[in-house]
Amino acid sequence: MTSPAFPARRLGVLISGRGSNLQAIIDAIGAGTLEATIGIVISSRASAPGLARARAAGIPSAVIAAADHPHRDACDAAIVDRLRAAGVELVCLAGYMRLVGRPLLEAYPERILNIHPSLLPSFPGLEAQRQALAHGVCVTGATVHLVDAGLDAGPIVAQAAVPVHDDDTAESLAARILVQEHRIYPEAIAFILGGGWTVRGRRVVKADAGA
Amino acid sequence: MTSPAFPARRLGVLISGRGSNLQAIIDAIGAGTLEATIGIVISSRASAPGLARARAAGIPSAVIAAADHPHRDACDAAIVDRLRAAGVELVCLAGYMRLVGRPLLEAYPERILNIHPSLLPSFPGLEAQRQALAHGVCVTGATVHLVDAGLDAGPIVAQAAVPVHDDDTAESLAARILVQEHRIYPEAIAFILGGGWTVRGRRVVKADAGA
Repeated sequence: MTSPAFPARRLGVLISGRGSNLQAIIDAIGAGTLEATIGIVISSRASAPGLARARAAGIPSAVIAAADHPHRDACDAAIVDRLRAAGVELVCLAGYMRLVGRPLLEAYPERILNIHPSLLPSFPGLEAQRQALAHGVCVTGATVHLVDAGLDAGPIVAQAAVPVHDDDTAESLAARILVQEHRIYPEAIAFILGGGWTVRGRRVVKADAGA
Repeated sequence: MTSPAFPARRLGVLISGRGSNLQAIIDAIGAGTLEATIGIVISSRASAPGLARARAAGIPSAVIAAADHPHRDACDAAIVDRLRAAGVELVCLAGYMRLVGRPLLEAYPERILNIHPSLLPSFPGLEAQRQALAHGVCVTGATVHLVDAGLDAGPIVAQAAVPVHDDDTAESLAARILVQEHRIYPEAIAFILGGGWTVRGRRVVKADAGA
């Protein structure tokens, strides 16, 4: 089934930390390379520095923490309420450190994007850059994918490769990957918002591409 | 422990099929970009088209097939005998379709290279290009690694990334990866022959590189 375009092109961004990918999205919108608006930024932590980025850009924000809800689904349901109230059509995870639960997945099926700092399926989960160094790869990268119930396992939208240097630390490697994250995430969001794509197997492809 | 250089720079190449990576090694030697000689080409199959490439280049060759030996170790021991008789210092697998057994691993510890058509640790084993398409990755590639007892699991020497196109077949993708295989395999062989490297964790690095 081919996805239609997203008429309002309105994003919701979920963060937990510094929100550097949120900033990349804000910057791409500002530069006109990503035609979209951010309806709301939701953080799972009140102390997330990324909240200041939202404020600085004049974007409404909210803190919805798991600790404030009786159980996991209630937290996700609260997130859905806020996203819908803000008219969000596409949810972008940007360093969001919670697994996405069923209420959110069901409210936004094939409408949640994540960015992960490895070339999936290599190195899913936490500390992907450290995993890559420990494994000894010479090439790693970043992956944008649709979110499903698996861990870093949904259909892949975009990837970029990044070299690993002999003298890399997890920090130096993470910084090099981040440059690519900030490039491909806004591009992938623009591609998804434009519609005309379909999920074929585990890939997100242009609907008119060959089999 | 830092590897010394390989004084005779003499290779043995093991094949099972068309031997396109064997040809890339022959061509790199001919072009002077890889300073080495091939002491012998050994095929696991008498019908391997790669044997004609060895003959055309004036390289001694042999067929050592598992079916001709009472058990697996005897086959590997026969291979070791031929490699040693040819003065081989470094063994290069090039589309060799058998697992390397204990006698060969023990005779050439950290002295066997393989090339695999994916960015390991993604997609080890057979039909790596088809696995990559099925998973839906946008980036795959090629990996040169030292061979140990695991499947496509030894320390990594070199990798190259290759884009996957929406309309790729396993064949079109394999052809694009092969271009990179033919580039990085001779380079990796030259690096290993030069010595001055060490295995740190699962990486092969220059011995003077930072931690």
